Amino acid sequence: MNISSERAMKPIFEPCHEYREADQARESGLYPFFRPIEAYRGSKVVIEGRELFMAGSNNYLGLALDPRLKEAAEAAVRKYGTSCSGSRFMNGTLDLHEELEGRLASFVGRDSAICFTTGYQTNLGAISALATRGSHVISDKYNHASIMDGIFLARGLHREVTLHRYRHNNLEDLEGVLRKLPVSTPKLLVTDGVFSMEGDIAPLPQLKAIADTYGAALYLDEAHAIGVVGETGRGTCEYYGDSLLTDLTMCTFSKAFGSIGGFVAGDRDIIDYIRHFARPLIFSASMPPSNVAAALEALNIIETEPERIHRLQQIARKMLDGFTSLGFEIGTASTPIIPLIIGDNEKTFMFWKALFERGIYVNPVISPAVPPNRALIRTSYMSIHTDAELDMFLDIAEEEAKKLHII
Amino acid sequence: MNISSERAMKPIFEPCHEYREADQARESGLYPFFRPIEAYRGSKVVIEGRELFMAGSNNYLGLALDPRLKEAAEAAVRKYGTSCSGSRFMNGTLDLHEELEGRLASFVGRDSAICFTTGYQTNLGAISALATRGSHVISDKYNHASIMDGIFLARGLHREVTLHRYRHNNLEDLEGVLRKLPVSTPKLLVTDGVFSMEGDIAPLPQLKAIADTYGAALYLDEAHAIGVVGETGRGTCEYYGDSLLTDLTMCTFSKAFGSIGGFVAGDRDIIDYIRHFARPLIFSASMPPSNVAAALEALNIIETEPERIHRLQQIARKMLDGFTSLGFEIGTASTPIIPLIIGDNEKTFMFWKALFERGIYVNPVISPAVPPNRALIRTSYMSIHTDAELDMFLDIAEEEAKKLHII
Repeated sequence: MNISSERAMKPIFEPCHEYREADQARESGLYPFFRPIEAYRGSKVVIEGRELFMAGSNNYLGLALDPRLKEAAEAAVRKYGTSCSGSRFMNGTLDLHEELEGRLASFVGRDSAICFTTGYQTNLGAISALATRGSHVISDKYNHASIMDGIFLARGLHREVTLHRYRHNNLEDLEGVLRKLPVSTPKLLVTDGVFSMEGDIAPLPQLKAIADTYGAALYLDEAHAIGVVGETGRGTCEYYGDSLLTDLTMCTFSKAFGSIGGFVAGDRDIIDYIRHFARPLIFSASMPPSNVAAALEALNIIETEPERIHRLQQIARKMLDGFTSLGFEIGTASTPIIPLIIGDNEKTFMFWKALFERGIYVNPVISPAVPPNRALIRTSYMSIHTDAELDMFLDIAEEEAKKLHII
Repeated sequence: MNISSERAMKPIFEPCHEYREADQARESGLYPFFRPIEAYRGSKVVIEGRELFMAGSNNYLGLALDPRLKEAAEAAVRKYGTSCSGSRFMNGTLDLHEELEGRLASFVGRDSAICFTTGYQTNLGAISALATRGSHVISDKYNHASIMDGIFLARGLHREVTLHRYRHNNLEDLEGVLRKLPVSTPKLLVTDGVFSMEGDIAPLPQLKAIADTYGAALYLDEAHAIGVVGETGRGTCEYYGDSLLTDLTMCTFSKAFGSIGGFVAGDRDIIDYIRHFARPLIFSASMPPSNVAAALEALNIIETEPERIHRLQQIARKMLDGFTSLGFEIGTASTPIIPLIIGDNEKTFMFWKALFERGIYVNPVISPAVPPNRALIRTSYMSIHTDAELDMFLDIAEEEAKKLHII
C-alpha cells in the first residue's frame, strides 16, 4: 500500500472520495466554475483566449479597473509595502486604515466604523461578537451566506444562540417570530439591503419599525447597495430617504468599491466593542495597504461622481424592462442584479454554456447559493457598459433562451 | 429621547455599553492596541512621529518591503486592476491564481492546492468543509484561533461536531482522547507546525504515527513555519526530514510571504472537495491581483534565496540564547517567535510601555490569545535585523525588565 492510498483510508475523507459531481460536469463539458480570466479589456474579459462581454461581475461602477484606483494602490504599495504582516490589534494598523474608517463613518452618517480584511469576515466578526449566549438572530431566508456563517460561528462559539429565518421580505412572518420572544431577550434582526441573487430591496422602514417595537437591533448588509442604490449611492437607507434606519450598517469593498475588505459602522460604543471582541478581526492579518488605498480612492470617486451611479441605475432600468419584455422570469429584481430564473440545474447550465459560446459571461447559480429548484443565471451590470453592448446581450439571450424553451 | 439613546436600549447592545476595559486602559495610558504605523523604514516603523525598532512583525523574511514584491504587486494592479470583483467560484478566478496554486502544490510536494482570500478563511473553509456531522476534531490547546473558529463554524453549521482539546504538544493526552473513539469515526487531528505565541514546534512524526494508528487525518497549519523552519524553509515537515508527514498542509501569505491570503494543499480529490464545499471560499471575493502576485514573487524568493532563511534561523538562535542568559522565561520557544512570559496582565502592559518609550515595538498578548495568567510579550524577528540592532534590544530589555523585577 502506498502513502496515497493510506491517506485515502482516513474516514473523514470518505465524502471527498465519493464526490463525483464536479468531475462528471467537467466530463460533460457543462462545468462552469473556476474559469480563469486572462485579461480585462473594459467591459470585456478574456477567457481561453476569447473575448467575452462581462455581465457577471460585482464591479458595478467599473472602479476595479479605474486608473485612479490603480495609481492609489500602487502608491500605497510603494509607501507601505505589500502586507501589514499582522493583525489590526497588533502591528497591522496603518494611519491609512484609520483614515478610511473615519471617512466611511462620515459617509454613512455614523459615529464610528471598523474595517475587516474581507466582507465575509466583517459579517462573521460583527455578528459573532454581538450574538452571544442567549441571543436570538432573526435572518431573512435570502440573506447572504456570510451572514448565515456569522450566525453559525456565533452558535458554534457560544452554543445557545438561536437562529430564526423568516420568509424573504415577509413582514408578517418576521413579526410572527418576534412576537414570541420577550422584549428583554437580546435580538439581532439581520437583512441584506439589496439581495445578492434576487436583486431586490429590503423593506427597510417597515423592518426598522418592527425591530424597534420588539427591541431588536437592526443590522443591514449593504454589500450590493452602497454605490448602487440611492440618489448619491449611499445605499438602502438613502433609497428610503432616512440615513438612520439601522443600528449597524456593513458593506464590503469587493463590489462597487473595486477593492476587497469590509466595514461595519454604528454608534461609538458598539463599534469599540466589536473592535475588541470580533475574533475574525483580532485573529487575522489586516487589510493590506493596496486594498485600503483602493477603497479610499473609490470612496472619493463615489462621493464626487454621482453620474456613475445614475448611469448604473439607468442601465438597470433598461435591462429590467428588456428581460421582462422578452418574457424572462426575473422575480422581484429592481437593481443592476437581475436573475434569469430557470429552476432546473441542467437547463441553467445549458443556458450558461450557450451564452458562453456566444461570447457572454454570466454566472449560473445553483443550491446552496439559492434555494433548491430556483437555479438561475445571475446577470449584473456595470456603469461602463454601453447601450449597444446591452442590446447585443438582450438579443443573444432571447435567441438562446428560445432554443431552450426558457422563454 | 433622541435616536442614539433609543438605539442604546436594544438588549443585544448591553454588553457593549457595559464594556469599559478599553477606555480605562486608554485613560491610564496603558492601552497598547491599534497603534497606527505611519511609515516603514527597513526594520524600523514610525508611530506617533517616532522611529521604533520593529520586534513584533510576522514579516519574517522582510519580503513585505522587498522591491521585487512591490514591483510584482504593482504590475498585477496595472494588468488586472484592484479587485477580481467576485468569488473564485464565479468571476473571481485569474490565470494568476491557478499559477500560484500549481507552484504551491509543487513547493510542498502535494497534488493540489487551493488559495483563500485570508489565512483565517483558509482554516475556516478547510476545517468546516471536512468536519461534517458526526466528526470529531482533535486540537492542540495552543492552536491558533482561526483553527478554533474553523471548528466552531463546523459545529455551528453541522451541529454534531465534537471538539476535543489536548494539552499542548502532549502525546499522552492526545492518545487518551483518540483511544476512546472508534477507528471508523471521522476524525481530524489539527496542529500548528510552529505555535504562534509560544514559538515552539509540534512533534510532527509522533503526531503522524498516532494519527495513522487511530485513523485520524492530520491537518498542519504552517502559518509561522514555511519560510521559517527547515533547511530550505519548507516548514515543519522539512524540519523533521519527511515531506509527507501530513494529510493536509495549510499556510498563510501574511507572514513570511509578505502578502495576504492562504492555501491548503493535499491529495487532488480532497482539495477538489474543499473547492466545492468550503463556504469561506465560495461566498467571499477572491484574492486580489496584487496580493496573488506578491505571494507568487515571495515564493520565487523563498525558493532561490535560502540565505534569508538561514539568517533568520541564526537570529533566532542568537535571541533565544540572549534572553535565556538574561534570565527571561521563554517557555519552549525554538524559532524566531520568542515569548517573554510575564503572567500578569498589568506588568505585561507596563513592560510593553517601557519598551515602547525606549523605542522598541513589541506586542503584549493577553487572554484569550494566550491562556489566562500567561500574559506575555511576543517578540518576533526578521532576516533584515542586524546584530547591532538585536544587541541594542537585548540591552534595553534587560534594563527595563530589571526595573520591573521581571528578571
